[in-house]
Amino acid sequence: MTRKEILGKTFELINDYQSSVASGEKSVINYHQPHQLKDKIDLKLPSKAGNYDNLFSDIEKYMKHSVHTSHKQFLNQLYSGENLPALIGEFITALTNTSMYTYEVAPLATLIEKELINKMCRIAGFTDGGGTFTTGGSNANMLAMMSARNKLLPDIKKNGLMGAQTLAVFVSDQSHYSFDTAANILGIGSDHVYKIKSDSHGRMLIEDLVKAIETSLIKGETPFFIAATAGTTLLGAFDPLDEIAEIAQNYKIWMHVDGSFGGSIILSTKYKYLFNGIERADSFTWNPHKLMNVPLIASVLLVKEKDRLLKNLTNLDTDYIYHDNDVQEYNLGKQS
Amino acid sequence: MTRKEILGKTFELINDYQSSVASGEKSVINYHQPHQLKDKIDLKLPSKAGNYDNLFSDIEKYMKHSVHTSHKQFLNQLYSGENLPALIGEFITALTNTSMYTYEVAPLATLIEKELINKMCRIAGFTDGGGTFTTGGSNANMLAMMSARNKLLPDIKKNGLMGAQTLAVFVSDQSHYSFDTAANILGIGSDHVYKIKSDSHGRMLIEDLVKAIETSLIKGETPFFIAATAGTTLLGAFDPLDEIAEIAQNYKIWMHVDGSFGGSIILSTKYKYLFNGIERADSFTWNPHKLMNVPLIASVLLVKEKDRLLKNLTNLDTDYIYHDNDVQEYNLGKQS
Repeated sequence: MTRKEILGKTFELINDYQSSVASGEKSVINYHQPHQLKDKIDLKLPSKAGNYDNLFSDIEKYMKHSVHTSHKQFLNQLYSGENLPALIGEFITALTNTSMYTYEVAPLATLIEKELINKMCRIAGFTDGGGTFTTGGSNANMLAMMSARNKLLPDIKKNGLMGAQTLAVFVSDQSHYSFDTAANILGIGSDHVYKIKSDSHGRMLIEDLVKAIETSLIKGETPFFIAATAGTTLLGAFDPLDEIAEIAQNYKIWMHVDGSFGGSIILSTKYKYLFNGIERADSFTWNPHKLMNVPLIASVLLVKEKDRLLKNLTNLDTDYIYHDNDVQEYNLGKQS
Repeated sequence: MTRKEILGKTFELINDYQSSVASGEKSVINYHQPHQLKDKIDLKLPSKAGNYDNLFSDIEKYMKHSVHTSHKQFLNQLYSGENLPALIGEFITALTNTSMYTYEVAPLATLIEKELINKMCRIAGFTDGGGTFTTGGSNANMLAMMSARNKLLPDIKKNGLMGAQTLAVFVSDQSHYSFDTAANILGIGSDHVYKIKSDSHGRMLIEDLVKAIETSLIKGETPFFIAATAGTTLLGAFDPLDEIAEIAQNYKIWMHVDGSFGGSIILSTKYKYLFNGIERADSFTWNPHKLMNVPLIASVLLVKEKDRLLKNLTNLDTDYIYHDNDVQEYNLGKQS
């Protein structure tokens, strides 16, 4: 088979799959227990390279046993649907197969990322903001917490946290578990992530936040990071951003907004008021793969201070990749 | 245009691009400075949705101004070429658009990942090993260092590193900068990453490694992580794994092998000897996107101890996603 025939057959498979999912012929899932599925499918890699007929038959099995996430009845994971132009974008990305660390190796992709980050910053009211695309909302939340940690204690990127003051993080009891994970990764410890009570709608209770900060200060800790949630996982609740911003400002604490689920609501004329106060935050996680139907894993971390992410860097002696030239500000790998 | 026509046109573009790159008609790159490229391309998002003719014309511009990474003269980033079955795999992945946190939402993909991890572990000599696909070699190296940190001090995931003993990391002076970055992220600090001298071929000098460990112990630090490199970035050098394993064992230090660049050489009958001793390591980074031409970002972290990555977890109270059922061991999100 020629490359053209192989791609032609692939496109047929892709088209047939999507048409049959859209038509409702297929159920969302045809569930099998792991041992049942293992019995049905031969997972062993062949010792020699197979042919394309094998590949196509494997693809058909894969499609058959996938959960059909673009099915109109798929609601499990807070994302759904198919965004066709974005899917085509993914195909082109895989085809051109480049990486984003330097402008030199991804010139137009770099300009597109910068344009999108600027546009999203303007929407968030970060008039001189910056940011980066990340590998998911959890990663964006971790990077936000790291930025706050390294801003407060710039030397710890070199010295480490051993011997440092005890840091404290504040989130609502409805917040995503990625904040515990981030505190674990960053050496802060999940016991120093305080879960503030929420009201019956799932919104963080402001008076409890203040009490928790005061208690932490009395214990001798350093409160440094408050994460509000814009769209909680279970209830879709929005924490009161403006009130939280007031407290963050009073206590000089970094304010983050986790919009992993609900971030795209900022584009709604009707519900934009839920983001009142976002422009006072220091960082904002926004995942177009949820609610905007862009394929996984489209996620963004925006920061209010344009160059903040660059300051997370260790001192890199990597002249083989980051040449000292006039496109420095376009080498996005330095802030990712 | 129907969905079928749109996909048909997309496939034509994909096919034409690749044929012209393969034929050598195109140069690897047609370089423009950022301001020149901005003048040529309108990056502004339209205020209304555009039509597919605009999309196709944008794709043509994107392809024209991309670095042609599958060109036979592209050698810049330690990867190259096109692996057609893997490219098709990427298309199918984008189409089916699922995530890997639970078996329920990605049943066959989960079994495939487990099969591949098992096979790669067997090749590395990790007879009862485990592992995970990661978002790149830097991420895999970070996860290895985190696993070593959390094994040595299991309480720090809850308590944090404040007040802990000073940890020390050992790599060669030819190692990748991701180890400095990992030490920064993990709260260990890049000043505690000791760069051991290498010989004229770029291989870590064993006597200098021993001296550095002894000096660190005298300073009262806790050496906990040695990373050997299997294929250094600049010279492609392989550190002597067996000798390093001996030292790691003597001092009870986690041994990691960074095969981000050279890992796939383990499949070579002729050069497999360069990996002598790998079976004594605790973890191994291997990126099929380099040397095996799989599209970015195919990267793997293997660990010798099957359940080690699970032990990195904070105590998750997430019963909405990880149900207490009999497919627990298939919920890969718990170890990623």
